[in-house]
Amino acid sequence: MCSGQNAGAARESGATVRVQQEGFRPRVGILGNAMRLGLAQLNSTVGDLEGNRRRIVTMLQDARGQGVDLVLFPELAITGYPPEDLLLRPAFVHQARRELDAIAEECVEITALVGFPELDRDLFNACAVCTGGKTTAVYRKRYLPNYGVFDEHRYFQSRHELLLLQLGDSLVGPTVCEDIWQPGPPATDLALAGAHVIANISASPFQLGKGAERERMLATRARDNACWVAFVNAVGGQDELIFDGHSLVLDEEGEIVARAPAFEEALLVVDIDTASTVSQRLRETRRRGLVRERGGPPEATVVDLGTAHATPDDVDPLLAPALSELEEMRRALVLGLRDYVRKNGFSDTVVGISGGIDSARTAALAVEALGSEHVVLVSMPSRYSSTDTQHDARLISETLETRFLELPIEHAVESFAQLLEDPFRDTEAGVAEENIQARIRGTLLMALSNKFGWLLLATGNKSEYSVGYATLYGDMAGGFALIKDVYKTDVFRLARHLNEQAGRELIPVSTIERAPSAELRPEQRDEDSLPPYEDLDAILESYVELDRSRDEIVADGFNDEVVDRAIRLTDRAEYTRRQAPPGVKLRSKAFGRDRRLPITNAWRP
Amino acid sequence: MCSGQNAGAARESGATVRVQQEGFRPRVGILGNAMRLGLAQLNSTVGDLEGNRRRIVTMLQDARGQGVDLVLFPELAITGYPPEDLLLRPAFVHQARRELDAIAEECVEITALVGFPELDRDLFNACAVCTGGKTTAVYRKRYLPNYGVFDEHRYFQSRHELLLLQLGDSLVGPTVCEDIWQPGPPATDLALAGAHVIANISASPFQLGKGAERERMLATRARDNACWVAFVNAVGGQDELIFDGHSLVLDEEGEIVARAPAFEEALLVVDIDTASTVSQRLRETRRRGLVRERGGPPEATVVDLGTAHATPDDVDPLLAPALSELEEMRRALVLGLRDYVRKNGFSDTVVGISGGIDSARTAALAVEALGSEHVVLVSMPSRYSSTDTQHDARLISETLETRFLELPIEHAVESFAQLLEDPFRDTEAGVAEENIQARIRGTLLMALSNKFGWLLLATGNKSEYSVGYATLYGDMAGGFALIKDVYKTDVFRLARHLNEQAGRELIPVSTIERAPSAELRPEQRDEDSLPPYEDLDAILESYVELDRSRDEIVADGFNDEVVDRAIRLTDRAEYTRRQAPPGVKLRSKAFGRDRRLPITNAWRP
Repeated sequence: MCSGQNAGAARESGATVRVQQEGFRPRVGILGNAMRLGLAQLNSTVGDLEGNRRRIVTMLQDARGQGVDLVLFPELAITGYPPEDLLLRPAFVHQARRELDAIAEECVEITALVGFPELDRDLFNACAVCTGGKTTAVYRKRYLPNYGVFDEHRYFQSRHELLLLQLGDSLVGPTVCEDIWQPGPPATDLALAGAHVIANISASPFQLGKGAERERMLATRARDNACWVAFVNAVGGQDELIFDGHSLVLDEEGEIVARAPAFEEALLVVDIDTASTVSQRLRETRRRGLVRERGGPPEATVVDLGTAHATPDDVDPLLAPALSELEEMRRALVLGLRDYVRKNGFSDTVVGISGGIDSARTAALAVEALGSEHVVLVSMPSRYSSTDTQHDARLISETLETRFLELPIEHAVESFAQLLEDPFRDTEAGVAEENIQARIRGTLLMALSNKFGWLLLATGNKSEYSVGYATLYGDMAGGFALIKDVYKTDVFRLARHLNEQAGRELIPVSTIERAPSAELRPEQRDEDSLPPYEDLDAILESYVELDRSRDEIVADGFNDEVVDRAIRLTDRAEYTRRQAPPGVKLRSKAFGRDRRLPITNAWRP
Repeated sequence: MCSGQNAGAARESGATVRVQQEGFRPRVGILGNAMRLGLAQLNSTVGDLEGNRRRIVTMLQDARGQGVDLVLFPELAITGYPPEDLLLRPAFVHQARRELDAIAEECVEITALVGFPELDRDLFNACAVCTGGKTTAVYRKRYLPNYGVFDEHRYFQSRHELLLLQLGDSLVGPTVCEDIWQPGPPATDLALAGAHVIANISASPFQLGKGAERERMLATRARDNACWVAFVNAVGGQDELIFDGHSLVLDEEGEIVARAPAFEEALLVVDIDTASTVSQRLRETRRRGLVRERGGPPEATVVDLGTAHATPDDVDPLLAPALSELEEMRRALVLGLRDYVRKNGFSDTVVGISGGIDSARTAALAVEALGSEHVVLVSMPSRYSSTDTQHDARLISETLETRFLELPIEHAVESFAQLLEDPFRDTEAGVAEENIQARIRGTLLMALSNKFGWLLLATGNKSEYSVGYATLYGDMAGGFALIKDVYKTDVFRLARHLNEQAGRELIPVSTIERAPSAELRPEQRDEDSLPPYEDLDAILESYVELDRSRDEIVADGFNDEVVDRAIRLTDRAEYTRRQAPPGVKLRSKAFGRDRRLPITNAWRP
């Protein structure tokens, strides 16, 4: 629709030559092949179209101030990702378009790629090219993910079309998220059509190790296509998803030239020079055969953005360090909680603290995310609570410097026992009685939440959520289940990591070393009812995340009775997980958007 | 893969001519154009592959006993629909294939179309043609729905291919569910390729009025393509979905020849004769132009099934009567509950009975679905419960002849008040105190559920779930929220309908006529906090089900403050609905699979 339009006409001409950034690999700048890129790693809020627009404009102005030629904003930056069924509301989509128009007006002396939902007869997950005060072209996402946590076929139509942005002598080909995960087109076609840079705007959700996986994949794309890759990712928490940022620029040999920090907003500015790309393509002509075979290069719409900007100085590109797995976990949990609290308009949180490791871990993370003054810890001992755990509960609160309430539940437990004396006559005490205690605590915490507007954080971990060892409406009660995707064994590792980082016992060693217990009956220990957590967690990882069958897991060397038991418990607890609060997704398959099983399910694997 | 294979070779030859069924339209039988169809409206259980196979074989034998030539089973009949992420487990898909093979072995002297997941390099939602003791051909679904409650792009690949089954002189073209909802191919292509009958195997979920909508659509397909349509639908409840059966056979003029009953299993047997189709196509040659324009008929694989069976007598096809909307609602709720209880291995249910209309309605439906002996009603009065409602609670239990428990919660309420006296000092009593009562009741009911294995039925209606007027972990507690998709105004209509049907006051008139109240504080009335239900429900229908904007709803003539309030309350309650139990979907958009909104959502419509 806008091929050949000279969108850069309003720009000042006479851009001078820039010398490339040093420090990682020397390059020689060639007139017209250099450009300054900005990767705006934005934390949008889903639905806050006006606020997102303001944040985009602020970053745009910052980028222009730094002499950036082309600034990239994430996929659906205007709406936040994923907007889910808000996309089915015409008013929402129209408003998003108006915000895009307002952003485009600000795009003078700079070009921006901005993700937005485009309604043009059908709905597209689109990348707007904003320059010269208006939207000059639109690229529409070709590959729509509809697996794992994604449902893009529910909302979007796709298009097969290539767009090339001419900036000086360089050609930049925009793509959207999933497009770049495909080994073939559009990346391969863009390169064959002449692109020197593939720009990818993403909202790529985090899971452990995802950053490294993306780096490997993008390096392959860069090398395969002999072109630069500029990948900008969203950052922030949205319900159970975390976007980790970790935006990247790679050169045509797949070397990482710049890496934005993970888990925080950033504007990554980097100078690139495509002269070496031109040179490499003249040397290595292996790809020419492909073009010859198809009878010519793929068709593409070319939009002229004019010459690149004059930039007085070179920037020193950031190469943020990669993080360890435990540190990734910690940062993801902190960001996820902070954004859930902030974006939902909460100020304070409340956590039931038992003196056990899970609630201690949750409390420590809440303090890190929000500050001590925004965390209230409530100890609710019963006759089964040991003096050790009660002591640790108080100690944790003192160490973390939070508010602390103690509400002994014994009297409430008795009132239930009296009420149920008649119906429960001649039955043996068991899960029913244990759950009453957990639910009295849930009711107390929810009362505090309702009264004071505190967000209640549920404290269960992934091992418990798997096998149904957390109590529905009891310790599963709350608005956010922070560590529901952290296996028990990882809860211990994280607790030690947190103490190491802090250089002191944020979480008492006694809490870490005590045998886990729900303390709902005398002398109770988790391992009386459950397999040792080392085994259990390994089995769960096979069953829940890898969809391995019972026989395959047994063949891995686990005791068959233990495997059968773990699977049976996990299947049976499906209905409780459906009623669980959201929590931070950390692994390849969290309980939530990415594991969709029927409750009514007679399949026994 | 099996074109031209004479799969009918093992059949006895020399089929005699059948005279067509009379009563609706006289037809003259022509040698080779008649066949007897069986539509096996099956109630599969998701995951129960072995049990589903047994049920299929039983119906198959029944059909053969009735001289059926071709019997149709629903989409994914072997796995149940929707199997969701069970489809990601190789062991599950392999087992489904083994069950199909076992079914095919039984297909002697009869041909069956059976829905199953086919793993052949990729996964397909497929229709097996089983005849002569084996699977002779497979048709793969072309259109995969991925909207509303559907997620088929998550699981399946699709194929563009046509299959024709030659039975005597007639050609039958199989399709799967969504395929027939498309006005174009495969239905149009099948007809152009020569099909006289389009067979459609479906798992088409129910919503109010869906049966009539399907009839209109199928009549159009039949007329447009001048061919018979045989539509078999699954029946039964699966979590929140109901499949209503309502299988149909329509002739080439779009007249309904046979209709199976809704909401129950059935084998619909009907004789058809395609001679009139042949005749009509010779007379009306409008469609010939389409074939000429494309240079010939669409390519199709033809499988020969031999001649049609000898049948001694004509069958009188069933034309089950259409149901009123209220009756559809009642039958869907009863089936949904019965199947949830049965398929999840429960025997008894428990309902908290307040003397109000919602819990009375839930109790009466439970008794209808399961019998009085499987329903326990528990009254849990507080100081705010009126003598009228307490009296009605007992009266309902007597009328419905259920077990009845009375557990006054006053003492438990006091114990919470004492516990919270200090933290709540100098605050005004409000929602926090009200919710404690609801949660004490939830805790008592869950204790009974845990102790005795009774399924707890939550009693909230759609109006309450929309605006957050039900208490999370209180009256929202339970395994199944039966009437969560019934607006309050419909709860009243249904109650009257139920009494009319029963010819007596199953639900006391006093319960129907009393002003609704949650009875959580003195003199409380729903309409103190909420708009009148007539207005509220109309606004909710616009906002929740039709995605209409605030301005559009105001333009419909509703007070703007009321609209703003209803929308604000509905948006704010999203996190509570995420933690709600499943319930029976009745409307175009229920809270559950078909309304997927972010919790973190700053959009204000």
